[in-house]
Amino acid sequence: MKRVRDIGEFGLIERIARKLPRSERSIIGMGDDAAAVMVPTDNSVLVTTDMIVEDVHFTRKISTPQQVGWRCVAAGISDIAAMGGIPWWALVSLAIPEDCDVAWVDGLYDGMIDMASRYSVEILGGDTSRSKDKIYIDAVTLGQAPIWSLATRSLARPDEMVYVTGEPGRSAAGLEILTSRPSLAERFKPLVEAHLRPLPAVREAHFLAETGPLGAMIDISDGLMQDMRHICRLSGVGARIEADRLPICDTLRDYCDQVGKNQLDYVLAGGEDYDLIFTCEEDSAHKLEKLWAKRFGNRLRLTHIGTVTEPSHGLKLVDAHGKEVPFTGGHDHFLKKRGHRPG
Amino acid sequence: MKRVRDIGEFGLIERIARKLPRSERSIIGMGDDAAAVMVPTDNSVLVTTDMIVEDVHFTRKISTPQQVGWRCVAAGISDIAAMGGIPWWALVSLAIPEDCDVAWVDGLYDGMIDMASRYSVEILGGDTSRSKDKIYIDAVTLGQAPIWSLATRSLARPDEMVYVTGEPGRSAAGLEILTSRPSLAERFKPLVEAHLRPLPAVREAHFLAETGPLGAMIDISDGLMQDMRHICRLSGVGARIEADRLPICDTLRDYCDQVGKNQLDYVLAGGEDYDLIFTCEEDSAHKLEKLWAKRFGNRLRLTHIGTVTEPSHGLKLVDAHGKEVPFTGGHDHFLKKRGHRPG
Repeated sequence: MKRVRDIGEFGLIERIARKLPRSERSIIGMGDDAAAVMVPTDNSVLVTTDMIVEDVHFTRKISTPQQVGWRCVAAGISDIAAMGGIPWWALVSLAIPEDCDVAWVDGLYDGMIDMASRYSVEILGGDTSRSKDKIYIDAVTLGQAPIWSLATRSLARPDEMVYVTGEPGRSAAGLEILTSRPSLAERFKPLVEAHLRPLPAVREAHFLAETGPLGAMIDISDGLMQDMRHICRLSGVGARIEADRLPICDTLRDYCDQVGKNQLDYVLAGGEDYDLIFTCEEDSAHKLEKLWAKRFGNRLRLTHIGTVTEPSHGLKLVDAHGKEVPFTGGHDHFLKKRGHRPG
Repeated sequence: MKRVRDIGEFGLIERIARKLPRSERSIIGMGDDAAAVMVPTDNSVLVTTDMIVEDVHFTRKISTPQQVGWRCVAAGISDIAAMGGIPWWALVSLAIPEDCDVAWVDGLYDGMIDMASRYSVEILGGDTSRSKDKIYIDAVTLGQAPIWSLATRSLARPDEMVYVTGEPGRSAAGLEILTSRPSLAERFKPLVEAHLRPLPAVREAHFLAETGPLGAMIDISDGLMQDMRHICRLSGVGARIEADRLPICDTLRDYCDQVGKNQLDYVLAGGEDYDLIFTCEEDSAHKLEKLWAKRFGNRLRLTHIGTVTEPSHGLKLVDAHGKEVPFTGGHDHFLKKRGHRPG
């Protein structure tokens, strides 16, 4: 087995450079002091970072390096999408122990390149360092969006409707299966796949930002309620989420029946689905739903799950009778520890 | 003592957000799915990342958090400068153990903000995560440069002259004093300061890129010979560096006399000086030297240290008689281990 210390830092960098496909999209890619890219006039440059840590966000025992690489890049692509932008470039900083198997690093980049190329994202290089024990990956993702179509977390207004795309909670259930109930992995494969190979909703988010008018938008990385809370805080509003309206994936329902769990726990608190929450005025909502159905109807659900309220109401989950339902959950890296939680 | 786990991830993020000064330079700063910025028409966006690892690039014993923060941000600012660009924004990803003192994180951001504000760089946020033991910081720096003035590593041509700015080697000597000879720190303070509070040559690099015509340019982060080797490899050339021409800082000379070391070892192999190496045609060199002297003469040395050669000559260090002088050194994170080496 060849280890990283056998080939050295510059050997590793050259190995990575040979792997990375070059595109015409960058002016200067890997190998210089900095990468250089251009965006069209009147477009903003979007940039986001995601730090992924071994034994916090993944373990080498459960995930293949390809799966880790895929998820690293997917997280940033989803963030750019949630701004209404198109992701174009990524850089990856990597700190690895010197006894790390070179094949593991190869696999990591294979997974990143696989994910990135599906979304036409070019990986421009990054930085490498020795770490003391674990693997640390910081994925930086850049994209562009016309200024007028930027979608932020801070523009939700009272009385707007709250929507969610897809069927959140699948990724969290998939992770639980992988860590605690591996014998069920084959039977509930869609949940496991949702965790290991999430697909950011780039086209869908771009459609929403362009079709508008949106209030706020966010991708679900911390959990539906937690991310809704981000919108509430940054927009200075409250929200009422109706439990009965929440979209539940059939496979998730079957899994919960099998293991005796409450499906709402996954839907409300599970992160890393890369589904989108957004708000829009009631007047435009009907038209938006029709356009969505025409464009994505059979491929991705769009569900009206609640209403933006005055800030004094706070964020509430209610049942069919409008009665408040208590909930906990959402993700905090320091306050909670849930084994190997997706980041 | 308040620890990170006491305030939680979102508590930490809010604490950082309150610290960071907002500027008018970004459209969307910290707190959204991604940050959004704009650059003027016909300008490229430059982006670079630097991963800084506790007990690889710094130790909490030797460096204050303010010093670590300063150096994190300085590294990326220097990279943008070495492309002929102006640094404008930074993002910081941070993985820290949950028992980390909150005051340490405060100090880190104080140092980053101090450095960034000297160069009018806005810190736009980033990502935070729990780490398993050590502190990991990935600093992402963005800037802009008109396409016509981009300075790369790949455009050196045979017969061009090789220049270096400043007096490289000071930072490496300063680190050695801090780690092995702390009793000498006061006496050789300029060397220690060069390590702890390096000042990237942004105005100087920008002047060179605009005044041109430059061949290649790079900042000295891995060591003078190692970084010259990067230019040679990417430009497909060789180079002859003349040992007698190398600029030696008086304080470094005194230090070497005192401890019985060879000053050339520091000048040739010491990294993290953020001085610049560049090449330019002999015809323009005289004019460039005159303009430099007028602009920066008393503040920063500019020294002609050698010549670009045909690729078959390789990279050579020669003495006053043109005889080759053997050398080793330069920095590789995996192949070499030198205690707490700057990155």
